[in-house]
Amino acid sequence: MERTDTVDVRAMAQRARQAAQPLAMADSSRKNNALQTTANLLLAQMPQLQQENERDLQAAQQNGLSPAMIDRLRLNDSRIAAMAEGLRQVAALEDPVGEITHLKIRPNGMRVGQMRVPLGVIGVIYESRPNVTADAAALCIKSGNAVILRGGSEAYYSNRAIASYLIAGLQAAGLPVDAVQYIDTTDRNAVGELLRCDPWVDVIIPRGGKDLIARIVAESHIPVIKHLDGICHTYVDCDADLEMALALTLNGKMQRVGVCNATETLLVHQAVAAEFLPRVCQQLSAAGCELRVCPQTRALAQGPWPLLDARPEDWDTEYLDAILSIRVVASLTEAMAHIEAHSSRHTEVIVTRNHASAMRFLREVDSAAVMVNASSRFSDGFEFGLGAEMGISTDKLHVRGPVGLEGLTTQKYIVLGDGQLRQ
Amino acid sequence: MERTDTVDVRAMAQRARQAAQPLAMADSSRKNNALQTTANLLLAQMPQLQQENERDLQAAQQNGLSPAMIDRLRLNDSRIAAMAEGLRQVAALEDPVGEITHLKIRPNGMRVGQMRVPLGVIGVIYESRPNVTADAAALCIKSGNAVILRGGSEAYYSNRAIASYLIAGLQAAGLPVDAVQYIDTTDRNAVGELLRCDPWVDVIIPRGGKDLIARIVAESHIPVIKHLDGICHTYVDCDADLEMALALTLNGKMQRVGVCNATETLLVHQAVAAEFLPRVCQQLSAAGCELRVCPQTRALAQGPWPLLDARPEDWDTEYLDAILSIRVVASLTEAMAHIEAHSSRHTEVIVTRNHASAMRFLREVDSAAVMVNASSRFSDGFEFGLGAEMGISTDKLHVRGPVGLEGLTTQKYIVLGDGQLRQ
Repeated sequence: MERTDTVDVRAMAQRARQAAQPLAMADSSRKNNALQTTANLLLAQMPQLQQENERDLQAAQQNGLSPAMIDRLRLNDSRIAAMAEGLRQVAALEDPVGEITHLKIRPNGMRVGQMRVPLGVIGVIYESRPNVTADAAALCIKSGNAVILRGGSEAYYSNRAIASYLIAGLQAAGLPVDAVQYIDTTDRNAVGELLRCDPWVDVIIPRGGKDLIARIVAESHIPVIKHLDGICHTYVDCDADLEMALALTLNGKMQRVGVCNATETLLVHQAVAAEFLPRVCQQLSAAGCELRVCPQTRALAQGPWPLLDARPEDWDTEYLDAILSIRVVASLTEAMAHIEAHSSRHTEVIVTRNHASAMRFLREVDSAAVMVNASSRFSDGFEFGLGAEMGISTDKLHVRGPVGLEGLTTQKYIVLGDGQLRQ
Repeated sequence: MERTDTVDVRAMAQRARQAAQPLAMADSSRKNNALQTTANLLLAQMPQLQQENERDLQAAQQNGLSPAMIDRLRLNDSRIAAMAEGLRQVAALEDPVGEITHLKIRPNGMRVGQMRVPLGVIGVIYESRPNVTADAAALCIKSGNAVILRGGSEAYYSNRAIASYLIAGLQAAGLPVDAVQYIDTTDRNAVGELLRCDPWVDVIIPRGGKDLIARIVAESHIPVIKHLDGICHTYVDCDADLEMALALTLNGKMQRVGVCNATETLLVHQAVAAEFLPRVCQQLSAAGCELRVCPQTRALAQGPWPLLDARPEDWDTEYLDAILSIRVVASLTEAMAHIEAHSSRHTEVIVTRNHASAMRFLREVDSAAVMVNASSRFSDGFEFGLGAEMGISTDKLHVRGPVGLEGLTTQKYIVLGDGQLRQ
């Protein structure tokens, strides 16, 4: 079922480096044309794509993948249409390349500013859902970067087909076809080879489970933009609107549970705990959520719903499941200290009507996204208005939070002089 | 002469992490007060500082350091005054911390923007000139970052004295004294230990020779912002003002030769080569510059000055000396291809009166700084208006070119909602 041919990844990386320069110089209309053509092809070739997808689905069934995993693989009509729409949305985004900012005149008359430019060649290593092929490549093309794609073996035929439409789109737009390359093998050594292509590849972006990311960070000779855990907190302040807090907690935890921006720990100020906890526990439990609670929560939230005792490791666990740990805190300060100690620095929410508390939380909490009165589930490139995302960075350097077009670029200094000499 | 005591670098890093949070929250006036107090101390304690500096100078003489090296170590009155003035200039810079940008309203009414925040804890590893202690710490304090300093053993006593004034400045301003720590030993193992402090240190910035940087990159468990070679090019276009080109070449090469932003290769368009080369070779030679030239240059630039044949490796060499390699090119395209093949992506200059050529060079050349009609020697944080610099990054990720206050910060997303739920 799998292609385990040896592929010359180094040669691919060298071709990508060659393609990166003309792509970096391409004007927006050409890049947008490539994305529009790919979107059209996805719709026009839907039956062929679904035939390729069927090969992956059959292999998945034979390999005993879970029904949930098989469902994630499936490319039905609406998912293909959504992929095409995603490409059109990226085409509609403003092109970040070439923007000149901060151009100021120095005392000697020289103008100094910065120009936004592509990173160059990006390696994307991902698992599971085939739409990542289209999303990631679209963001790379639009931001002027060549990309080398390495999808999971379970979506091999689907990914390869989608990549072929992207390449056809580049060709139709007169852009270098090597700007999108798919590693056409499921041989695991290919990933290791890609991670050693540091002369030609500027950055590696992994998308997938912790094990994949840990392996890539350990092995890579190339800088990695990564996402680790999503241990997100929702803190219900003493000045919270409790109806809003109920809705935000339910949404943050249960709107979708297997994702990095789901709330994993609820912190409740002691002044509202007696009123808030029984209601939130009742509603969460009714929605099918398991509750792991601190002793104070147990004392205050008794009811017909089951409460488990939180163990110390619960505060440091990303459940990715319908499980929530709950703790009562004495103050905003204690809530922030808990977050400082246990957060993975992904996304934290405060629910409050108090302006000073909101501003303090925004300023002092050191996470990629800090929110006032909004669901943690909004921590996402599309929801933030980036159009799409390459993933969410929990790193501090280069880009933090959802990685969109700007995160795939850098800035060079430009100087416009008329013969200035240094004294 | 040296202190080789074992120092608990991990404990220092943990204290720095503790100090980072209050420093990140400190308002600008407190941080500026700390810098002003340090500047005052440098001037008031000049005799004591020079006494400490004398201990380093004596050791340097005993160890047989070159007169040039010994001169770089010396803290005479004017250098101490310049250090104090540097601190005051950093104090005068705008505080980047807390700035909110790109705050936009999403269709659901939620406001999404970004807030600039410090990186956290920065490790600075440097060699030679003691003023780096003051410059680096000042930029870290102003940008809200705790810093661990590790200077070269040859400046041990000078660095330690300067660090003590910085710490006194923090104390006087009511800021945590552990925000500036100096690794008080010349034991080489301390560097290795610092590079393994990844739980507490966010970034390492090395300043020094290639060997130091290579060792740090190879050993570090912490992200490194680094500067490798400075193989900078000045290209004299067919449309250049040749008087300006002469002055810019002389300045770029000879204003100071042992620095990363000195021009190492001169490229000359063939249309102006016959007129330009004899004049520039005569002037460079008169200024004491050795010339390593391509065959065409040799044919066109005959004169009483010596011309050596450039070997292939000359095009890839950072001389850091009064040596210039010279090549004639057939076109702007060929000049840019030479730069693409041989540049270290630090700084490149075009000299031209042609607008289209200037714009093409600016857009297409992929280096940290790209200049039109200005000396390569301007590629420097102070000259670019950043007030000072932590070094010049030849990396592409996070920060490119001179690293000032903004390069020592990152941005987190902030969301201001009124109860928005994800659908």
